[in-house]
Amino acid sequence: MNKKIKTSAVSGFPEYLPADQLLLDQLKQTVTATYRSFGFIPLDTPVLERREVLLAKAGGETEHQLYFLENNSDNLALRFDLTVPLARYISEYSGALTFPFKRYQVAKVYRGERPQKGRYREFYQADIDIIAEGVLPLSAEAEIIKVIATVFEKLAIGSFTIKISNRKLLSGLLASLDLSAAATEILRILDKLPKIGAESCQAELKKLGVDSLASSQILALASLNGDVLAGLEELDIKHPDFVVGLGELQELAQCLSDYGVPAANYSFDLSIARGLDYYTGTVWETFLDDYPELGSICSGGRYENLVAGFSNRAFPGVGASIGLSRLFYQLKTAGLLPEITPPVAEALVISDDRQRGEQLADSLRRRGLSVAGAYESEKLKKKLALANHWSVKTVYLLGEEELAAEEVSVKDMVSGEQKRQALSEFI
Amino acid sequence: MNKKIKTSAVSGFPEYLPADQLLLDQLKQTVTATYRSFGFIPLDTPVLERREVLLAKAGGETEHQLYFLENNSDNLALRFDLTVPLARYISEYSGALTFPFKRYQVAKVYRGERPQKGRYREFYQADIDIIAEGVLPLSAEAEIIKVIATVFEKLAIGSFTIKISNRKLLSGLLASLDLSAAATEILRILDKLPKIGAESCQAELKKLGVDSLASSQILALASLNGDVLAGLEELDIKHPDFVVGLGELQELAQCLSDYGVPAANYSFDLSIARGLDYYTGTVWETFLDDYPELGSICSGGRYENLVAGFSNRAFPGVGASIGLSRLFYQLKTAGLLPEITPPVAEALVISDDRQRGEQLADSLRRRGLSVAGAYESEKLKKKLALANHWSVKTVYLLGEEELAAEEVSVKDMVSGEQKRQALSEFI
Repeated sequence: MNKKIKTSAVSGFPEYLPADQLLLDQLKQTVTATYRSFGFIPLDTPVLERREVLLAKAGGETEHQLYFLENNSDNLALRFDLTVPLARYISEYSGALTFPFKRYQVAKVYRGERPQKGRYREFYQADIDIIAEGVLPLSAEAEIIKVIATVFEKLAIGSFTIKISNRKLLSGLLASLDLSAAATEILRILDKLPKIGAESCQAELKKLGVDSLASSQILALASLNGDVLAGLEELDIKHPDFVVGLGELQELAQCLSDYGVPAANYSFDLSIARGLDYYTGTVWETFLDDYPELGSICSGGRYENLVAGFSNRAFPGVGASIGLSRLFYQLKTAGLLPEITPPVAEALVISDDRQRGEQLADSLRRRGLSVAGAYESEKLKKKLALANHWSVKTVYLLGEEELAAEEVSVKDMVSGEQKRQALSEFI
Repeated sequence: MNKKIKTSAVSGFPEYLPADQLLLDQLKQTVTATYRSFGFIPLDTPVLERREVLLAKAGGETEHQLYFLENNSDNLALRFDLTVPLARYISEYSGALTFPFKRYQVAKVYRGERPQKGRYREFYQADIDIIAEGVLPLSAEAEIIKVIATVFEKLAIGSFTIKISNRKLLSGLLASLDLSAAATEILRILDKLPKIGAESCQAELKKLGVDSLASSQILALASLNGDVLAGLEELDIKHPDFVVGLGELQELAQCLSDYGVPAANYSFDLSIARGLDYYTGTVWETFLDDYPELGSICSGGRYENLVAGFSNRAFPGVGASIGLSRLFYQLKTAGLLPEITPPVAEALVISDDRQRGEQLADSLRRRGLSVAGAYESEKLKKKLALANHWSVKTVYLLGEEELAAEEVSVKDMVSGEQKRQALSEFI
């Protein structure tokens, strides 16, 4: 016997018991099926990428979080997101692809950060993007937002709002105030607006050297609510970036309406800034209305040149990402997951005759059910306990009596109702 | 502009263009759905495991093939199969699991070997296992073999044979010949029987010091065909291992018949040995009848103690593994993949009116179809070209004329047939 080896999960690398595993799988299936229903293809790039690819656009923090492989001539590391691999893929295969290229990828990514509750080192991301060659119409943004709204509607985890902004509005305002150089710091302060409030933001802006007139204008923009489009027009800012951004937001509003995205599912909110550098226009974050404390559960936006660094050609795109593992943790913690455990098997056939039992099971499988069989000579009580452990919905019982009568006892495990049916209805 | 970064796929890490990606995804879906239909749950363990876990039972070659992570205190490496993670999982959570524990896992594994055609460093395995606590009935072996037969029937890649043996038969014979000590070498020679023939095998056995009478008996066993069960009885070997093995094979034959596995899909073949150490009884390999040169496309067997090294308790199991990425490569090379490219979207709605178009698309999505929309003011020809690139089955056309008449032109892209339907049939 070897010395006992540590078999527990490694911190930050989640794994689940069957009930949770089935729930997480259901979540993944819902997201994937929704992405698929809009005509996106399932791209599947390697988990490992060349170090230089991953570091092409990554900042200092990302580099510290990368997992590199030991001694390998290809200098490989584990991907930290699904966006960089997409950019590399587009750049490499653009000649063989049809544009618009619409793909999703639901897969694991890796970040060597200190694990905390709901923050993992290995976790699922569920990304969806539309990439164009040359020009990407604004309607593509509405399409991605519609997909995301459909996903959260199907997940049935309560009402949600996709809060949409356009980067050009704030950058236009900042340019008109001669504050473009401080944009990154100002964005970082605005990101905290919902948490710390306008007064504290103003104080922080002052420390940065922004005068009170300018910071009032910035905070007025970020705090707009109600009819935000009308409010933006009233601000009457003439900087061309602002004018373009407002035009895009107006067109997006029209597109969202045309695409039938329910008005309750989105709003315009200029406090949405998004940390990532590559977004250039529309950006959004998604919040559960009753659980704002969970933070954003899906973010996305438009980028004019994803593949910079890999290719000289421009491929504008728009995409969204759901941090599935984190979302699953949050939903579970908030008690928002379905209370009904998904069944291991939908039906269990208990039979004293293995052959008849398996014939019945096969006929149920042909109807699309997942079916397990229990034919060994154990106590019936033990087999029914199995049905409970597996959250089986229906038990089909073929005892001596049923077999002699060519019948089957069908037991609904939820209602407890039981009835006899002729075997010929199935086999 | 950065210096151009290498964006090509890394050798041994496959990635695919959309048409192949969709086919591989279809293959994965078929395998997964079949596994699921028998009431197995989708286990999903981390890609990274502790080095000591992976090395607990691995031989020298495996250690050389492991990808270790650089500088990490948990000493992590990439899994090389899905069996060791299963053993660790069972060992860690056995108290919280219901047995029999039936799980599948379709996921990537990593081996740092020299990549060759169809041999990858990152590849999908599709594993399915039944694990018991204490005693595992022989019917579980028939169940796994039935699942595998169902998978290959559904994949529709031609007739196949699951060649089944039982390790105890050969080991019983070898024990009765006092050759147990040379078992590993003898197995290695027998593995080559189909390739090099009986005469060359006999010569190799002689080199090993096996006398001609013994080698005749060994080769007679390995070469049995026709009614193999009767042939085994005729050999009249008395060693208890052989007797037990024969009894198990007879019982398995009965079980396979009871479970309704078509007789054409399996045979008993004592030349099947399987390299892996942990198999203890029934073992099998699967071959395409018309493409024996592809080698085994699915192997499996029974193991009495998977978790040795992790736990002091015994958890016997039976399982099978399909090397999906390799199988996909082989099927593609042999021209056995479906000729019809799976559609990116099943339907494409082309409409001059975005709102009406998307209403129609939504109604089709509600019917379970994957639907893309094309509403931008481009040439119709360009949009129809998109339908071809995406292998769309049906195009729904809402031009000015159709919109005025509240109708839609429905075009079957395969037959070219086109008809008008009232929009009210959909919306």
